Amino acid sequence: MTREDARALDRADPLAPFRDRFALPEGLIYLDGNSLGVLPRAVIPALADTVQRQWGERLIRSWNEGWIDAPQRLGAKIAPLIGAAADEVIVGDTTSTHLFKALVAALRHDPARRTIVSEAGNFPTDLHIAEGAVACVAGTALKVVDRADLAAALDDDTAVLLLTHVHYKTAERFDLADWTARAHAAGALILWDFSHSVGAVPIDVTAAGADMAVGCTYKYLNGGPGAPAFLYVARRLHDALANPVSGWMGHAEPFAFTDAYRPAAGMKRWLVGTPSILAMASLEAALDLWRDIDLTQIAAKSAALFAILAEAGAAAGLPCVSPTDPARRGSHISFRHDHAYEVTQALIARGVIGDFRAPDVLRLGLTPLYLSHEDVWRAGEHLRDVIATEAWRNAAYAERNAVT
Amino acid sequence: MTREDARALDRADPLAPFRDRFALPEGLIYLDGNSLGVLPRAVIPALADTVQRQWGERLIRSWNEGWIDAPQRLGAKIAPLIGAAADEVIVGDTTSTHLFKALVAALRHDPARRTIVSEAGNFPTDLHIAEGAVACVAGTALKVVDRADLAAALDDDTAVLLLTHVHYKTAERFDLADWTARAHAAGALILWDFSHSVGAVPIDVTAAGADMAVGCTYKYLNGGPGAPAFLYVARRLHDALANPVSGWMGHAEPFAFTDAYRPAAGMKRWLVGTPSILAMASLEAALDLWRDIDLTQIAAKSAALFAILAEAGAAAGLPCVSPTDPARRGSHISFRHDHAYEVTQALIARGVIGDFRAPDVLRLGLTPLYLSHEDVWRAGEHLRDVIATEAWRNAAYAERNAVT
Repeated sequence: MTREDARALDRADPLAPFRDRFALPEGLIYLDGNSLGVLPRAVIPALADTVQRQWGERLIRSWNEGWIDAPQRLGAKIAPLIGAAADEVIVGDTTSTHLFKALVAALRHDPARRTIVSEAGNFPTDLHIAEGAVACVAGTALKVVDRADLAAALDDDTAVLLLTHVHYKTAERFDLADWTARAHAAGALILWDFSHSVGAVPIDVTAAGADMAVGCTYKYLNGGPGAPAFLYVARRLHDALANPVSGWMGHAEPFAFTDAYRPAAGMKRWLVGTPSILAMASLEAALDLWRDIDLTQIAAKSAALFAILAEAGAAAGLPCVSPTDPARRGSHISFRHDHAYEVTQALIARGVIGDFRAPDVLRLGLTPLYLSHEDVWRAGEHLRDVIATEAWRNAAYAERNAVT
Repeated sequence: MTREDARALDRADPLAPFRDRFALPEGLIYLDGNSLGVLPRAVIPALADTVQRQWGERLIRSWNEGWIDAPQRLGAKIAPLIGAAADEVIVGDTTSTHLFKALVAALRHDPARRTIVSEAGNFPTDLHIAEGAVACVAGTALKVVDRADLAAALDDDTAVLLLTHVHYKTAERFDLADWTARAHAAGALILWDFSHSVGAVPIDVTAAGADMAVGCTYKYLNGGPGAPAFLYVARRLHDALANPVSGWMGHAEPFAFTDAYRPAAGMKRWLVGTPSILAMASLEAALDLWRDIDLTQIAAKSAALFAILAEAGAAAGLPCVSPTDPARRGSHISFRHDHAYEVTQALIARGVIGDFRAPDVLRLGLTPLYLSHEDVWRAGEHLRDVIATEAWRNAAYAERNAVT
C-alpha cells in the first residue's frame, strides 16, 4: 500500500463527502473516535439555538415545544442504526445507569432464574454494574466466565446473558443472532452492550430477536463528551419489564403529581429524572448526520482502513490482537506491545492520537465518516517509524486517564 | 405599595447589578425561575469554548485537561451554598438517580432499621424513587405520612427520613436543624432534598448536622434545562455508605479496567457513568456567579418580593397558601384558585410567566438575582387585573406539562 493507493481509495470513497461535516483539528490524525467522536459542525448552531433561543428566550415554554419528547425523538433516530422500531429505543441517563435498570428488571422477570452471566474482561462498568444489580435482587448472583466458557455457563438458572457486542480492547465481535439464540435456547434473556459497535458495524436487533440493549452515543455517533446513552427493549417485553429506578419522568402522568408511582406505557417508563437538554441537543444534531448514511458503506470502509493499519503493523512486527475477519470485529485495531503505553505517547507526540489500554494494548480507532484512507496510511507510516526507530523510548509520560 | 415604592427598593437593592448577567427576554416578567432558571450570559462563551476548543480541537485530551474532575470541581462550587465542605458534594446524574443511590445506601446502613419515612404530597419523584429503593433492599418499606404525623412516624425501625426542605407547591420550609435532630434522636439518618431551596434560602448542613442531601441545579442555580444534580454526604459517612449503582466512574481506579468493583474514597464513589460535559460546562458558568453573592441578601430580597405579591394577592382576594413567616418558606408564593390553571394561562398571555400546580395552585417564583421589585410589582398589578376582570375565563387552553 502506497500513499497513491490510499489516495485512489479516497477518490472512490462514497463516504468522503462526510468529512467536511466534522470540525477536524488541523495537523491531527485522530484515531480515537471510538473513545470520543469528533465534533460534527452541525452541533454548533444546534446548541446555539438551544441555549440562546430555546432556553434564553422561550424558557419554560420550551418543554412544550420539543424538550419533553426529546428522549423518544432521539431514540427514534437511533433505532434504524440497530435495526429496532422507532418506539423501541429511548435516550437519557448514562450507559451504566441503563445497564443497571435493565439488569435489575431482567433479574426480576422470572423469579426462578437467579443469575447474570457475563464475560471476564468485559468493559469494566458492565461487570461493576452487574455486581450492583445482583445486590438489589435478593438471592441472585453474577457469574463471570471466560469467553470460551460462556456457552457452557448458560443454564436454567440464567436470568440474563450480558454481552458487549464489540470488545473495547480487542475489537472482537460476538455474532448477534447466534448468541441471542443461545441465550434464548437456555430460556434466558439477552442484554447487549452496543457501545463499541453502534455506528461502527451494521446491527439488526429485530432479525436477531434480541431482548434488550444499551449503547453509548459519544463514540461512533459523535454526540459529544458524556452524551446520553440509549436503551432498547423489544416491544414484546415493554409491559413485562419495569424500571427499578422509578423516577417521575417514567411515570404514566408525571404532571399529575401523584404520590404513587405508575409506570408509563412503552419505553417512556425507562426514563428517570430530567435529562440534560443541552446534551440532548448536541446528540440530536450528531444523529441527524446518520439519516443519509448506508451502514454497509461504513463497514466496507472500516475494513479497508483496517487493512491499511494491519499491513503497517505487520511490517513493524507488531502482533495484532484484533480478528482478521471483518465480520468478527468492530471498527478499531489493537496491537500488543510490551511498551504499548510509551508507543501510544510517541504517536501522540507526532499528532497521531490513539489510546493505550492496560496492560499492553495500543488501540487505534477507525471512524469511516471522517477519516480518509490517506490519514490512516500516514498513521501507519508513523507507527512503523516509531517502532523501527524505537522513538517510544523517549516518549514523555502523561496521565493515563482517557474515557473509553 | 406603589410603582414608585418598588422603584425605590430597586435603587437600594445590592443585588440589582446581577440582573445584567442574565439574558432576560424582552417584554416578559418571568416568575418561573423556580422551575427553570434564566440563562446566565456567561454560559454562552463557556459552552462555545467547551464545544469548539475543548471538544472540537483538544478532543480526547480534554479529559486530562479538566473534564475528569468536573464532578468534584462543581461540587466544591455548590458546597458553600449549602454549608458543606468542598469535598462533601459531587455533581452528576439527575436528582432522581441521586435519591435512589442515597436511599438504597441508607437502607443498607443499619440492617436493624427497615423503613424510609417521608411526607405525603412530597415532590412526586422523591416518593416514586423511594418506592423503587425499598424494592431493592429486601424487607424494607416506605412509610408516607402527612406532615403533622411525621414526628410520630419516626421510631427505631426508621432507617432514613426523607424530607424536601422547601415544598414545591406551597413553599413551606422545614427547619433544617430541628428535623435533622429529630431524625437523629430516633437513631435514623436524614436525607434532604434541596431542589426548591438551594440558591433560594440560606442552608447550613454542617451546623444542622445533616447526613445526606440532593438538589437540583436548573432552578435557582440557573444551570440550564436538565442540568446535572448534586449529592452531599457528610464526611463522617463517606466510608460507611456505598453506591448501589456501582458504575466505573465511582471505581477507585476506573482506568485500571479491572473486573471487580472497588469503590473510590470520598464522594467519587457516588459517580456512575460518564457525565455530560456540555451540561457540566453550562452549570459551571452558572455556579461561578454565586462566588460574589451573599445569601442573606438573597433571603432579604426574596422576602421583599414576596411581600409585594402577597399584598397584590390579598387585594385580589386570593388565598395565599405559602407561609407568612419568611423563615418558614422558600422563594416562591402560591395562591389557591378554583380556576388556577386558567388564571396561570391568562397571566402568561400578558407576559407574566408563572405556573400551575394541580389541582388548584397558581405558583409564582421569586428569583432575587434577576427580578426587580418593579417587575414583581407589575406582575402583581396583572394578577389583580386578571382576577378583577375575570380575564381568566377567556384564557386559551395549552398543554399542562412543565418541568418543575
